[in-house]
Amino acid sequence: MGSAGKIESLEKLARLMRYYILTATTHAGSGHPTSSLSATELMGALLFGGIFRYDTAWPEHPNNDRLIFSKGHASPLYYAMWAAAGQLSEEDLMTYRKFGSPLEGHPTMSFRYVDAATGSLGQGLSIGVGLALNAKYLDKLPYRTYVLLGDSEMAEGSQWEALQIAAFYKLNNLIGILDVNRLGQRGETMYGHDLPAYEKRIAAFGWETLVIDGHSYPAVLEAYQKALHAKDRPVMIIAKTIKGKGVSFIEDRNGWHGVALDQKDYQRALKELGPVDKSIRGRILSPEAIEPQAVAPRAPDPMDYPSGESVATRDAYGHALKRLYPQFPDIVAVDGEVSNSTRTEIFKEAHPDRFFEMYIAEQNMAGVALGLQCRGKIPFASSFAAFLTRAFDQVRMSQYSDANIKFVGSHAGTSIGEDGPSQMALEDIAMFRTIHNGVVLYPADAVATEKMVEQAARYHGIVYIRTTRMKTPILYGAGEPFPIGGSKVLRHSANDAATVIAAGVTLHEALGAYAALKKEGIIIRVIDLYSIKPIDAETLQQAAKETPCMITVEDHTPEGGLGEAVRSGLGMVDVPLFSLAVRKKPKSGNPLELLAFEEIDTAAIIKKVIVNL
Amino acid sequence: MGSAGKIESLEKLARLMRYYILTATTHAGSGHPTSSLSATELMGALLFGGIFRYDTAWPEHPNNDRLIFSKGHASPLYYAMWAAAGQLSEEDLMTYRKFGSPLEGHPTMSFRYVDAATGSLGQGLSIGVGLALNAKYLDKLPYRTYVLLGDSEMAEGSQWEALQIAAFYKLNNLIGILDVNRLGQRGETMYGHDLPAYEKRIAAFGWETLVIDGHSYPAVLEAYQKALHAKDRPVMIIAKTIKGKGVSFIEDRNGWHGVALDQKDYQRALKELGPVDKSIRGRILSPEAIEPQAVAPRAPDPMDYPSGESVATRDAYGHALKRLYPQFPDIVAVDGEVSNSTRTEIFKEAHPDRFFEMYIAEQNMAGVALGLQCRGKIPFASSFAAFLTRAFDQVRMSQYSDANIKFVGSHAGTSIGEDGPSQMALEDIAMFRTIHNGVVLYPADAVATEKMVEQAARYHGIVYIRTTRMKTPILYGAGEPFPIGGSKVLRHSANDAATVIAAGVTLHEALGAYAALKKEGIIIRVIDLYSIKPIDAETLQQAAKETPCMITVEDHTPEGGLGEAVRSGLGMVDVPLFSLAVRKKPKSGNPLELLAFEEIDTAAIIKKVIVNL
Repeated sequence: MGSAGKIESLEKLARLMRYYILTATTHAGSGHPTSSLSATELMGALLFGGIFRYDTAWPEHPNNDRLIFSKGHASPLYYAMWAAAGQLSEEDLMTYRKFGSPLEGHPTMSFRYVDAATGSLGQGLSIGVGLALNAKYLDKLPYRTYVLLGDSEMAEGSQWEALQIAAFYKLNNLIGILDVNRLGQRGETMYGHDLPAYEKRIAAFGWETLVIDGHSYPAVLEAYQKALHAKDRPVMIIAKTIKGKGVSFIEDRNGWHGVALDQKDYQRALKELGPVDKSIRGRILSPEAIEPQAVAPRAPDPMDYPSGESVATRDAYGHALKRLYPQFPDIVAVDGEVSNSTRTEIFKEAHPDRFFEMYIAEQNMAGVALGLQCRGKIPFASSFAAFLTRAFDQVRMSQYSDANIKFVGSHAGTSIGEDGPSQMALEDIAMFRTIHNGVVLYPADAVATEKMVEQAARYHGIVYIRTTRMKTPILYGAGEPFPIGGSKVLRHSANDAATVIAAGVTLHEALGAYAALKKEGIIIRVIDLYSIKPIDAETLQQAAKETPCMITVEDHTPEGGLGEAVRSGLGMVDVPLFSLAVRKKPKSGNPLELLAFEEIDTAAIIKKVIVNL
Repeated sequence: MGSAGKIESLEKLARLMRYYILTATTHAGSGHPTSSLSATELMGALLFGGIFRYDTAWPEHPNNDRLIFSKGHASPLYYAMWAAAGQLSEEDLMTYRKFGSPLEGHPTMSFRYVDAATGSLGQGLSIGVGLALNAKYLDKLPYRTYVLLGDSEMAEGSQWEALQIAAFYKLNNLIGILDVNRLGQRGETMYGHDLPAYEKRIAAFGWETLVIDGHSYPAVLEAYQKALHAKDRPVMIIAKTIKGKGVSFIEDRNGWHGVALDQKDYQRALKELGPVDKSIRGRILSPEAIEPQAVAPRAPDPMDYPSGESVATRDAYGHALKRLYPQFPDIVAVDGEVSNSTRTEIFKEAHPDRFFEMYIAEQNMAGVALGLQCRGKIPFASSFAAFLTRAFDQVRMSQYSDANIKFVGSHAGTSIGEDGPSQMALEDIAMFRTIHNGVVLYPADAVATEKMVEQAARYHGIVYIRTTRMKTPILYGAGEPFPIGGSKVLRHSANDAATVIAAGVTLHEALGAYAALKKEGIIIRVIDLYSIKPIDAETLQQAAKETPCMITVEDHTPEGGLGEAVRSGLGMVDVPLFSLAVRKKPKSGNPLELLAFEEIDTAAIIKKVIVNL
């Protein structure tokens, strides 16, 4: 087909996509037609202009190009595009936004071509960075990653985190497509149609920039061709577009964000659109049939922690990751510029090609992890646990991508001491507990940590591991199993005066209380609740039956933490249940002073037991 | 004093500050001396070079210049600076990082000159934007805001959110001081000593940039003088500095981040420093004695919601803010480019000079709110509740600033319907419940919303109000009070078969269940738990005594939400307590379908009551 013929065919496909966009949204009675119409040529040229390479019969093909709709509200375009490619029928499109349809309001994993759920703005570029890092440095495949971006979402700082990291890693296989349609949700964006405002910022961040008319197929195709030949930098195509393009009475008009046309306007719009050829289908190029080199898993070395020694669980985490990598060769680590504190540096030094420094930018780190797991990797993402709160929205969104990510937060709780409250994670358990099917693990010693890292690597899903800054004594032998959902009853008798439930640093305080109380002839049960979610309800319920009083102890706020997890796990509680937790505003001091101040130390546990005898 | 004399005196003060930095950290045995030594001249010139204007006897002076240490780990410099100004003794400095000392590891409100606690990097510039917005647009005062920034923290996206907004609002009263000391925590920063890398990025974001040698007093002073004359843009002083400056054996060396010198190295360092004149004190200029115009509060108009009508609580929020502004003339609103959804636009249209558009950048929005409240404003910050998770770290940090901020999250829960899970807040209650002394309110109708906005404005602290997208019927008369910590027993009898505890959208489902069950002769108690934190434990405990079964119903995850708040509030629960909550991964659909799918609707409540009869 000649160039003129090609453009003509693309124009026809654009008309078909516009028809689908309008029809699906009007039928649904909601959705974002105008945000879809602005990017129709940008996506049409990509998919059907001989740029994108994708095997529609095999979405998981390791060498498929990837496309992330960062502006997820343009889902009508996304589905229209796949319909124009022959992968959805008009009937399918009529289920858009209906309960049970794979065509959700914003793209989710219910639809087979989606790599990652989007809809919270400013997250797609980070996911793209993860996909592109994988292609360039891990799988070493020529596939490219395209990310469709809205202009409004460029206000999100996470975008600039992604931009800087993409340039730092010279991701010339990453192409951003910025749909500058001038209008946000409630009015003009910060820069409106000032395209140079975007160009100079993005160029300053080290990207190649191409400013084009986003509705001109020749211009768009030329830009993609240039992008295919990027040398050592990622490319941003900055396209001037019209929101609502193709429907004159909504073009470039404020007040039409997220509004579907009513029947009357819809009919008017169709008239403007002119005749639509519903028989045509766009053709997508096939990917090169290349696959990454497979690495066979090997048995790991045994671990070695002499009993009687004290080891910080954060150290054990670093050692575990290094040791277990041969067994899980899909492991990759990312860290927010604190690998000497999280101890991810132990892994980094052993396997430098499996580590990516993410600098102090936790949102992008979480997004990159999501991108990496899209291509079968097992990402471990670490920072101070307190700073993982920075990425809550990314963590939240990754549950809708059915993501397989391991987050590891060090320096948990007041027990970090002198650095003070800004560095103390006191809400991380609450945060990660909210994740659907998420796992929250909190090891108390080095052996448990190693075992939980292994469990986490094995489990498909979002796992959070909380580690401790200070050294804690080894409690467990190397053969001890730590299944997800389990617990350890470390001390028990037929006549326990109380059950103390703790995890991590407070478990050692509980054991201290046991020893001190025993001298007084008082025996307590001590449970290591290392798996806070899922929780071992059976063991807890048994303790509630067998002991007259229960006490939870945690270096975390009372809200959403171990104490509330236990209450929910127990269900009906007909014994007194007390929660020792961080209830006062913490401050700087030494760790033991702080545990005492917060009344989560040995003395506080003893006091609580005795008062309730 | 002549120029040479001035420089000589500043050099002496720098030596004194270095002495204090080294002495305090070595005495504490921890802290960040090297990160402090790099910025000593930058801060010495500011405070003692005739730039900064501050009444040390009156820190709250409305026209004091403000200084935010965004790189909070440079606290040794911060305290050394105030010691050199005669506001702390050497003895005071010896308490650095000790339990109970106001001189915490990272600056907190325990120290009288601190405006906002810092230590989580990348947050200070947003706080500075809030302070500068206040000076320029609200209090209309000539004070300036200075923010000391680390180079490593420029990787945080929140910085770029702050940079763009500062330029957008032409904050020529905001001066950033970027201490480019090349080294982060675990090695070189992304750009090392490539100062043009920072310059081009920051200039592209619309700031005036001044690149200087950060250890040359004349250069630093000249830069500040230029900054004092900024016309229509904020100014960033980009200073090349040496980490550990002044102590040759730690200068520009990796591995010395956050490490105090031991006694031997300390003595070596003091020798290098040479004789220190401990008798000198730096002089800080006084501020102009100007105060903002005071606005007297006026009684608000009465509200007007005809009973029988249905009004979305998000609409009521917008109306309340507009109506209550005369009563609380310190109210200011900020919104993340969704004011037409959160309905903050109702306030914006009525009081445009009290509204600042923050675009889609929630982290900066939270930081700006923190800055605004530092100067006595009552900021209301709104977005979709789901997207407030983006600012969790800023929210977390603001509790350590004893902040007075009202967060308002709309579009809560699955009841938003068709837009799908990305837009549904299901973890916002869990997030805000973790805040020390935080308040979490969830109104079910328009009247309750108006009353809670008033309560929030009156309360000094962090308050979260959760609003609903869809319309809900008016339940309450205009005279009904809604105190923080209260609840409403809407239906009760002497023979209630169960107590159903709900809030917001699920309260209407509970009332539906009441009506349906009553027809079958089954009477239930219904409690509107509008104050989720603090919680009305007394009413709950009474219900637990008086009814044989309790059921919580919430449009939120079971973890950390209303259900767990009730369990914790109840303490011992010797009746069956069931939690209906969002336990399945939600999807697009209409609101009623989703409430049914998640089993949090009228039918699910009825079923639970009947099964447990």
